[in-house]
Amino acid sequence: MSQEENIKEKETIIIQAARKRFAHYGFSKVTMDEIATDVEMGKASLYYYFPTKEDLFRAVISQELNELQKNIELIMIEPNSASQKLKSYVEQRMIFFQKLLNLGTLSVHAYFDTKSLFKKIFLDFADVEMSLIKKIIDEGKKSNEFNPDLNDNTAEVFLHILQGLRCNVLRWAKGQGIDDDIRVNLQKEMMIATDIFIHGIIKR
Amino acid sequence: MSQEENIKEKETIIIQAARKRFAHYGFSKVTMDEIATDVEMGKASLYYYFPTKEDLFRAVISQELNELQKNIELIMIEPNSASQKLKSYVEQRMIFFQKLLNLGTLSVHAYFDTKSLFKKIFLDFADVEMSLIKKIIDEGKKSNEFNPDLNDNTAEVFLHILQGLRCNVLRWAKGQGIDDDIRVNLQKEMMIATDIFIHGIIKR
Repeated sequence: MSQEENIKEKETIIIQAARKRFAHYGFSKVTMDEIATDVEMGKASLYYYFPTKEDLFRAVISQELNELQKNIELIMIEPNSASQKLKSYVEQRMIFFQKLLNLGTLSVHAYFDTKSLFKKIFLDFADVEMSLIKKIIDEGKKSNEFNPDLNDNTAEVFLHILQGLRCNVLRWAKGQGIDDDIRVNLQKEMMIATDIFIHGIIKR
Repeated sequence: MSQEENIKEKETIIIQAARKRFAHYGFSKVTMDEIATDVEMGKASLYYYFPTKEDLFRAVISQELNELQKNIELIMIEPNSASQKLKSYVEQRMIFFQKLLNLGTLSVHAYFDTKSLFKKIFLDFADVEMSLIKKIIDEGKKSNEFNPDLNDNTAEVFLHILQGLRCNVLRWAKGQGIDDDIRVNLQKEMMIATDIFIHGIIKR
């Protein structure tokens, strides 16, 4: 194994251990000491790979994002209608946010904190999403499944609806946090909104 | 004029003067002294009618809400389709929020402040809106304009989409404030979302 492969492997082991801890206890409650113990490494060695807990956390989130992106690529190559692709994408998106919640990332506070660690990650992710939705809608227009005269901003509006439904829920949840009822209801609203939206852009 | 009428008239004069000031300078920059001068009243008299600037402001907002409610009632009795009513309502809603912005109420900060003066006002308003949208959608279902099998939460989802689009914009605008471009774009997105939504619930 080359030194580079060796580093990569160590990183993967650390990220997996951290992921488990974060998912169990939430970001804020986990210490670097605990993660070092999990991977049977000295604290100094751990810091060599990840200088701060934030760096490690960012690596965990990046991994989740990569996974999401792979799932989205699968959606795109499946021989489904554009409507079905849009639905599958919304489902994958909800699963992803559920994971973030479990990891303790998406606290109501972190969500609205403009200086949050995760703002850049979320912004980059929004770009990926935007081009994906555009692609699906263009596909649907070309195949005559969707109305070809759709407004150019249709993809943008759809993404903003999805983002907005979550924003709205978290806004009212501020100070309380997000319980299971709120989560389930949000997912339900997203599916209803998606269904109506698809109906609304399908060609008659 | 009875004493009661007299009080009512004084209050109306004060509210109108305050409204002008707030619209010009924004809530935070206006003082009770200035308003007292505007209505040629001693400060003590002004405080008799409105003990705090917040009370006065709440009265201004209530007046705007009453006006909105009147406009909405007009929409409901006009002999239009349910689709048109829904559109008119969204337009009135946008005009109302524009007024709030002008009054300096709806700063990004105030919007996300759960202890904000205006949270209760907004919550009450949301109830009014919800029953209005339900009414329009039920009307459309009965007249066979809308799909009679629509999900029971359709009205809720529609209101949450409208609230969400604004929430999302303000979330990204935090720390910067809302300029004209952002406002115009938000209104555009609301109209596109409304059109697609209506298309999506119309009976085929």
